[in-house]
Amino acid sequence: MKDVAARAGVGLKTVSRVVNEEPGVTPDTIQRVREAIDALGFRRNDSARLLRTGRTASIGLVLEDLADPFYSPLSRAVEEVARAHSTLLFTGSSAENAEREQELVLAFCARRVDGLVVVPASDDHRYLEPEIDAGVSTVFVDRPAGGIDADVVLSDSAGGTREGVAHLIAHGHRRIGFIGDELRIHTANERLRGYREAMAAAGLPVSEEWISMGPTAPERVRAALTAMLAGPEPVTALFAGNNRVTVTAVRVLVGELRPVALVGFDDFELADLLRPAVTVIAQDAVGLGRAAAKLLFRRLDGGSDKPRRIELPTRLIVRGSGEIPPAP
Amino acid sequence: MKDVAARAGVGLKTVSRVVNEEPGVTPDTIQRVREAIDALGFRRNDSARLLRTGRTASIGLVLEDLADPFYSPLSRAVEEVARAHSTLLFTGSSAENAEREQELVLAFCARRVDGLVVVPASDDHRYLEPEIDAGVSTVFVDRPAGGIDADVVLSDSAGGTREGVAHLIAHGHRRIGFIGDELRIHTANERLRGYREAMAAAGLPVSEEWISMGPTAPERVRAALTAMLAGPEPVTALFAGNNRVTVTAVRVLVGELRPVALVGFDDFELADLLRPAVTVIAQDAVGLGRAAAKLLFRRLDGGSDKPRRIELPTRLIVRGSGEIPPAP
Repeated sequence: MKDVAARAGVGLKTVSRVVNEEPGVTPDTIQRVREAIDALGFRRNDSARLLRTGRTASIGLVLEDLADPFYSPLSRAVEEVARAHSTLLFTGSSAENAEREQELVLAFCARRVDGLVVVPASDDHRYLEPEIDAGVSTVFVDRPAGGIDADVVLSDSAGGTREGVAHLIAHGHRRIGFIGDELRIHTANERLRGYREAMAAAGLPVSEEWISMGPTAPERVRAALTAMLAGPEPVTALFAGNNRVTVTAVRVLVGELRPVALVGFDDFELADLLRPAVTVIAQDAVGLGRAAAKLLFRRLDGGSDKPRRIELPTRLIVRGSGEIPPAP
Repeated sequence: MKDVAARAGVGLKTVSRVVNEEPGVTPDTIQRVREAIDALGFRRNDSARLLRTGRTASIGLVLEDLADPFYSPLSRAVEEVARAHSTLLFTGSSAENAEREQELVLAFCARRVDGLVVVPASDDHRYLEPEIDAGVSTVFVDRPAGGIDADVVLSDSAGGTREGVAHLIAHGHRRIGFIGDELRIHTANERLRGYREAMAAAGLPVSEEWISMGPTAPERVRAALTAMLAGPEPVTALFAGNNRVTVTAVRVLVGELRPVALVGFDDFELADLLRPAVTVIAQDAVGLGRAAAKLLFRRLDGGSDKPRRIELPTRLIVRGSGEIPPAP
């Protein structure tokens, strides 16, 4: 700004007035300052904006994995809402690592974001308290915060799973497997609860050998499903806890001689074109991202009622794989 | 920092020494400063780092679409390289809009990123010249810059398409359709060139009715392919110009009575599980992102040789759909 002032032959205050479109500057001076700005390639930067509005017009989004197809539409939805508020979005992946989540969140805070949307990998967010006290609004999405009371937007994981498992039971299955993500992950836990509740509601016993929780790496899922299909009392159907598990399950089941029913949590592209097409419990990924971002901007605009919990319904999409009867 | 100094009863310089882990401070003083920092929720912010190193340890990535499965692994790869350099990644989608690209790029520059990785939507990047002159390193990826001489990392779009079309010709096809993205997009143009070159190399005439360029929205692709299949001389095979086109083409061809061969540019998840499985020309999305980010950090570390053009090879993956013979 000093360079602009010197080049235009005016004071710093005048440059600031022109940049912020304040009154009290003659058209001729405005013209000179603008020319100096163009000549120097000067652009109003963060600091100027921060001083003027107290905001940086930027928000941070911390996801589990940028490359997971569930998070892509979610992040795109957050971006669209941010854009409608003339706000820039910074994104980063925690890769399910609590330390990395904290590192990213604090890095965004150090860059003075106005607010955060976080898919938590950690289950303890007390490290965020000083930031929240300092005015950084935070909305959690997909999973709730741990140790602090904060806004959260979720899918009805337990309810959706109950519906999916009940659907398999209604098609005659009694021995139903469940493969899910690591137990420390809130959604994995909730979906397992839904599975147990649906089995209990139908009066069906659950063998712990039908349940496998852990990382969603293909090798782990493949081994777990193969084991469930190999025992003396093999499962005749599988509920897959998320799209990563479903995709691997489809690959395993293609090689099976007897047909095994499958319902997966999360819809995915081309699920309808597989043979059999895959029956799923669809989450509204766009709806989650949009609701979280809208709630964040409501907070930024001064909404200070107590933390909210928004739960979006899931939807059973019947396509074929979930309607296969038990092998005799 | 003033508040920290006052609270700890030390000078500003001492606070700075503690924060930057410089020698010459007694353990007792370090302890007092750390306690003051914790008490005040102070964290080293951008400005402090900027003053110290001249860098913000952040880079910006402008993509075409965060939700496109081709760009997800690319952005994840850029993020991994950035992380290895202790650098934060900011991302944004241009949605194929030149104005929005410029807006995002300049917003990142205003936030003082050290460098940029850009998938261009615009074909004129002269607006970036003042930023590049001011020291913002920029690497283009997937498509080259327009109007300026800059680093770029690309796939061999023309060569890959030539190989895919030659593959269809080798399986007996003479009337081969080509559906691609909008002609102003560099990769779309290059792939169309590859198609024409392969047809010419085989001495085959090309009817302009076999070519359709435009947005990759499903309705547009569906209409174009339906028209190509309806005429008196219908195409017996299709080359799809990117994964968005391929996915819609698969949906259309499922409803066709006669078999139509298909080769698509870009691999995609589950391509191998469709029936027929889809033959593709695979790009190395991770390789593109990694090469672009590595080149950017080489520039940031002072590499100032002239702009480079890195072209990564593509790979034909034979799966079934591209080996269907022409319908009689």
